[in-house]
Amino acid sequence: MATHAIRILGIDPGLRRTGWGVVTTEGTRLSFVACGCVVSTGSLTLAERLRELHDGLVDVLSRHAPDEVAVEETFVNKDAQATLKLGHARAVALLVPALAGLSVAEYATNLVKKTVVGVGHAEKAQIGAMVRVLLPKAAPDNADAADALAVAITHAQHRQARALARRVAEAAS
Amino acid sequence: MATHAIRILGIDPGLRRTGWGVVTTEGTRLSFVACGCVVSTGSLTLAERLRELHDGLVDVLSRHAPDEVAVEETFVNKDAQATLKLGHARAVALLVPALAGLSVAEYATNLVKKTVVGVGHAEKAQIGAMVRVLLPKAAPDNADAADALAVAITHAQHRQARALARRVAEAAS
Repeated sequence: MATHAIRILGIDPGLRRTGWGVVTTEGTRLSFVACGCVVSTGSLTLAERLRELHDGLVDVLSRHAPDEVAVEETFVNKDAQATLKLGHARAVALLVPALAGLSVAEYATNLVKKTVVGVGHAEKAQIGAMVRVLLPKAAPDNADAADALAVAITHAQHRQARALARRVAEAAS
Repeated sequence: MATHAIRILGIDPGLRRTGWGVVTTEGTRLSFVACGCVVSTGSLTLAERLRELHDGLVDVLSRHAPDEVAVEETFVNKDAQATLKLGHARAVALLVPALAGLSVAEYATNLVKKTVVGVGHAEKAQIGAMVRVLLPKAAPDNADAADALAVAITHAQHRQARALARRVAEAAS
């Protein structure tokens, strides 16, 4: 089977800062494209902050035209207000690519850590270090962008297994 | 000061069912325009369900062209997963009017109950009954649409006080 490069956008959602990272995968080869962070203004209303996240992610989609998108699953916190805020940001991260007709995969934080670092309970700093090993050209200037690249790498590793599972399910139905 | 009719959209967000209701207010007069419910398909992915809510609310906005929008504040539940789901739906309810350039007010559930029924701990059935008293032409066929009309009524009652507070704050700054 001939392979062709697939462009993947990973998103690490947060109301204050939503990290994003783009990689390409072709066979087993992984390449860095770009990464960054969409920031919302704390003094605005919640609706306006969500609009800032929306506009920022629309801009990322139009500049980098990913084929597939992966979003980190929210860590459900004991702090209900924090969980709710994260839920708001994450909804925007799921909605923007869905509105663009792109498929959106979701990965639990522990799976991202396990895929990138090898253990499910890795520290933030370990993720950043491994992202720099796997993508030597990446220089994420903050933890959110590094986490987003980790999500994109996770999707690159798991997307073929997911696609296979989907074809098996379709053939069986 | 001459009054003119203001058209208010109230939204009661939920991932499965998001209720909406439109009223007009002119001075102390309140009139029913329309109400309904946007439903998402449980078998779809979360991203696709959020897109359904988005598309449904975009349709409501284009059909009813509200001047102002009010969204019920989420009741933070002990069940973190339920809180997160509600946060996702609520983000879409805040985002869609913000993208249309409309101001979005938020009201706590208890304030909605207190405004419409007179007490902060009213039952669902009491809200529906009072909505039908205040808006005789409304026949909300479900609790979500009735709750959304209650949010719109709450905004009609409180918007003048909010506007005054904003003007005072602007004059003082």
